[in-house]
Amino acid sequence: MTAPSFDTGRLDRDACAALDATDPLAPFRERFALPEGVIYLDGNSLGPLPRDTAAHVQRVIAEEWGHGLIRSWNDAGWFDKPRTVGDMIAPLIGAAPGEVVIGDTTSASLFQTTVAAARLRPDRRVIVSEQGNFPTDLYVLESVQTLLGGETPLERRLIDDSGPTLDEVLDDDVAVVVLTHVDYRTGRMYDMADVTRRVHEAGAVMVWDLCHSAGAVPVDLSGADADFAVGCTYKYLNGGPGAPSFLWAAEKHHGAARPALTGWNGHARPFDFAPEYAPAPGMTRFRVGTPQVLAISALEASLRVWADVDMAQVREKSLRLTDLFMSLADERLSRWGIEVVTPRGPAKRGSQVSLRFPDGYAIMQALIDRGVIGDFRAPDLMRFGFAPLYVSHVDIWDAVAALEDILTTEVWREPRFARRAAVT
Amino acid sequence: MTAPSFDTGRLDRDACAALDATDPLAPFRERFALPEGVIYLDGNSLGPLPRDTAAHVQRVIAEEWGHGLIRSWNDAGWFDKPRTVGDMIAPLIGAAPGEVVIGDTTSASLFQTTVAAARLRPDRRVIVSEQGNFPTDLYVLESVQTLLGGETPLERRLIDDSGPTLDEVLDDDVAVVVLTHVDYRTGRMYDMADVTRRVHEAGAVMVWDLCHSAGAVPVDLSGADADFAVGCTYKYLNGGPGAPSFLWAAEKHHGAARPALTGWNGHARPFDFAPEYAPAPGMTRFRVGTPQVLAISALEASLRVWADVDMAQVREKSLRLTDLFMSLADERLSRWGIEVVTPRGPAKRGSQVSLRFPDGYAIMQALIDRGVIGDFRAPDLMRFGFAPLYVSHVDIWDAVAALEDILTTEVWREPRFARRAAVT
Repeated sequence: MTAPSFDTGRLDRDACAALDATDPLAPFRERFALPEGVIYLDGNSLGPLPRDTAAHVQRVIAEEWGHGLIRSWNDAGWFDKPRTVGDMIAPLIGAAPGEVVIGDTTSASLFQTTVAAARLRPDRRVIVSEQGNFPTDLYVLESVQTLLGGETPLERRLIDDSGPTLDEVLDDDVAVVVLTHVDYRTGRMYDMADVTRRVHEAGAVMVWDLCHSAGAVPVDLSGADADFAVGCTYKYLNGGPGAPSFLWAAEKHHGAARPALTGWNGHARPFDFAPEYAPAPGMTRFRVGTPQVLAISALEASLRVWADVDMAQVREKSLRLTDLFMSLADERLSRWGIEVVTPRGPAKRGSQVSLRFPDGYAIMQALIDRGVIGDFRAPDLMRFGFAPLYVSHVDIWDAVAALEDILTTEVWREPRFARRAAVT
Repeated sequence: MTAPSFDTGRLDRDACAALDATDPLAPFRERFALPEGVIYLDGNSLGPLPRDTAAHVQRVIAEEWGHGLIRSWNDAGWFDKPRTVGDMIAPLIGAAPGEVVIGDTTSASLFQTTVAAARLRPDRRVIVSEQGNFPTDLYVLESVQTLLGGETPLERRLIDDSGPTLDEVLDDDVAVVVLTHVDYRTGRMYDMADVTRRVHEAGAVMVWDLCHSAGAVPVDLSGADADFAVGCTYKYLNGGPGAPSFLWAAEKHHGAARPALTGWNGHARPFDFAPEYAPAPGMTRFRVGTPQVLAISALEASLRVWADVDMAQVREKSLRLTDLFMSLADERLSRWGIEVVTPRGPAKRGSQVSLRFPDGYAIMQALIDRGVIGDFRAPDLMRFGFAPLYVSHVDIWDAVAALEDILTTEVWREPRFARRAAVT
C-alpha cells in the first residue's frame, strides 16, 4: 500500500507557507525556545526546550528546595511526583490515571518491567524480541535471560525483516515479547493491537517500548489490550537531556506483578522502615529509589505543554510533514541514489523519516552546518524527526532544498565533514 | 571509650560564637542559600541548596539544552558526565580518577553493584547484611538473592547489635557483605578497614553503602582495600532532591565485574548499535542508560563547592559539633528522659546525633515550628545532622535551647504537633 502523496510538481515554498498559515498546531511553536536560524529535525533524539521549563525548574530549585528544604517532600508533593507526573503522561498513551509511574533510565525501567512480565509466565523459557531493536533493549534482555534463567539462561528468539516472522517464533514456550512500537532507525510502526492479539493468542505477555511513540503518534495501550510498556520522555515529550523514563502496566497486572528492582519507594509502607519487602499496591511497586525531583520538574513543565495538545491533530500534521518530506526527497534527491527507507503507508510509520545513502554521515554534517539538524545512524541512515508542535511545512521545504544544494554543490565532500573514526 | 567532652558548665552562647569566629570552615556558609531564620540540621536527609546551583542549572538548560540541543552530547560533554562528575567525587571517598561513575537511584546502583560483587564468588550462596540497615538495602538484597539464586534463593544472614556478630556469620559460604558505613538511625560508624579485612579473611567481597558517609566523614576506600561502594549525593553532598547515586569499584575488579543492568551506555562501543552486549572497559560498564544531565548538572555545581573543602577540617569540626550537641543534650535535656543513642567514641560516629524519646515525633514538629529542622524516625528517634560547611556552634547552642524550652513549656503537647496516622 502506498499512501496518497503530495503532488510536488504543483508545490512551492509559498504553498508550504499557506499550509502553515492554516495549521492549528502552529501556535505551539512559540512555546519552545528554538535557536534562531535552526530547523530542528532531531526531536526524535532530544526534544527542544519548552519556553516555560527554565522558570519552572528555577522555582523548584529556589523555592521548593532552597526555601522548603526537607519539608517539600510533603508540602510540594515531591514524594508523589512519580505518580502525579505519570498521570500527565497517561492520556498520551491510552492509559488510565494511576497506571503510569516515572522511573529511572529507560534501560532500568525496561529491566524492571520485563522481569515482572516474565514472572507472570514462570513455566515458559523464551523471550522474543527483534534483531533491529534499539540495542539497549537487547542488552537488557540478555541480562533478564541470565538472571531469570536459573541453571541455564532463558532462550532468546529475534524476529527480523528477513525472517523469522513473529508468527514463526511464537509458541507455547514464549513468556514475553518485547518490541519497540516505532523503529528507531527506519520509523516503521507496528500495529499495536494486532501484534498484541497474536502474542496473547500464544499465551505470552506483551511489553511495548514506546520511546519513539509517546508524543509522536497516538498510542492506545488499553485499547490494544497491552500488558506492559516503558517509554522515554526526552525525545518527543521534551523532558530534557536524560529525562526519566515512564512505566505502564495494565491494571489487571498490578496485583500480581513482581518487579526486579525492589527499592523502598516501591514498598507498601516505606516510612515504616520495615526490614522485609512488601510491594505497594498498584504501579507504585514499580518505583525504585528516591525520585529525581529536578529532572521530573523539567518533565512536568513540558507535559504542561502536552496537556493542551490534541494527539489527533499531531498525527494528522505528522503524516502531512513526513509525506511532504518523502515526496520532496523522491523528486529532488533520488537522482543521487538517496533512498527513503521509511514505510510509505500511513499506518506503518511513526513521525520520522530515514534516508539511506552511503555518505550519509558527511551529508548530515554538512546539513547541520547549515542549521538543519538531524542525525546519522551507522552504517548509512540519515534520520529526520518531525515533531508537529514546532516543525513547519516551510521547514521541510527548506530542509530538502538545503539537502539538494549540498548534493548539487558536493560541499559534503569537504574534509571537515568526513566521518571520524569514533563517536564518543 | 568515651571521648573528651565539652565542659558545658563553662560554656555559654558567647563561647560558641567565639568558636565560630575562629572556624576555618565558617566562610563556606555563604556558599549555601539557607533561608533566613532556619537552623538546618537535616542535611543528612536532604542537603541545602548551594548558592551557585540555580545559575549553573539555568545555564545548562538555556545554553546547553536550549541552544546547543543534540550537539551538546559531545560539545558540552554530556555523554561523559557520569565519569567526569564521578571524578569530582573520587577525592572525597579515597578513590582514584576513573573509579567512580554516576548512576541511577541509589537502590538501582546497589542492585547493580551487589550483583557484580556476588558474581565474583559464584560458588558461595550467602549474602550478609545487617538487621538495622537502611531498608532499601535489604529490599534490594532480597531481589538479588532471588535473581542470583537459581532454583532456590541465596541465603541471607543479618548481623545485629544483639547478635549475631559479623564474625559469627562469616564463613566460606559467604559471597558478599553489604553494610552501611554510617547507620542512618543512630549515626554509628564502622571501622571500614577493619571490617573489610575480616570480610576478606573469610574470602568474601565487601560492598559499602556510603549514603551517610560521603561528605560527612573522610572515607578511604582504597586505603581500606574495599571492593565496591555506592553512595547518595543528595544528603551531605548537596546535589539536590533525588540527585543521582554514585558507584565505585576497586580497579582490580574492573575487568571481571559483570553488573546486572546492561544498558547501552555501559557498552564497549555504544554507537556501533551492535545487537550483542559487550561490557565497556573500566567503570563505564556500570553505566546503564542515558545520563540525567539536568540532575547531574545540579550535582556538578555542588561538587564545585566540595572541591574547595578539606575533609580533615570537616571531620574536626563535625566531631566538635556532635560532641557539643551531645554534651549539651546530656546536661540540659536528660532530666526529661531524653537519651543520646549515638556512640560517644569519635571513631564510632558519623556526622549525626540521634536522641531517643517516646514523644520524639511531637517534639520534632514543635522544633521545626521554631525553625530548627531535624527529622524523626519511628518509633522514637529524633535525628540531627551536622554538616560543618553551614552549621555553626551557635546553631547547636540555639537548637538545644529551643529543645529545652519546648520541653519546659510542654508546648509539644499541643494537638497540632501530634503524630498523624500515616506519613506519606
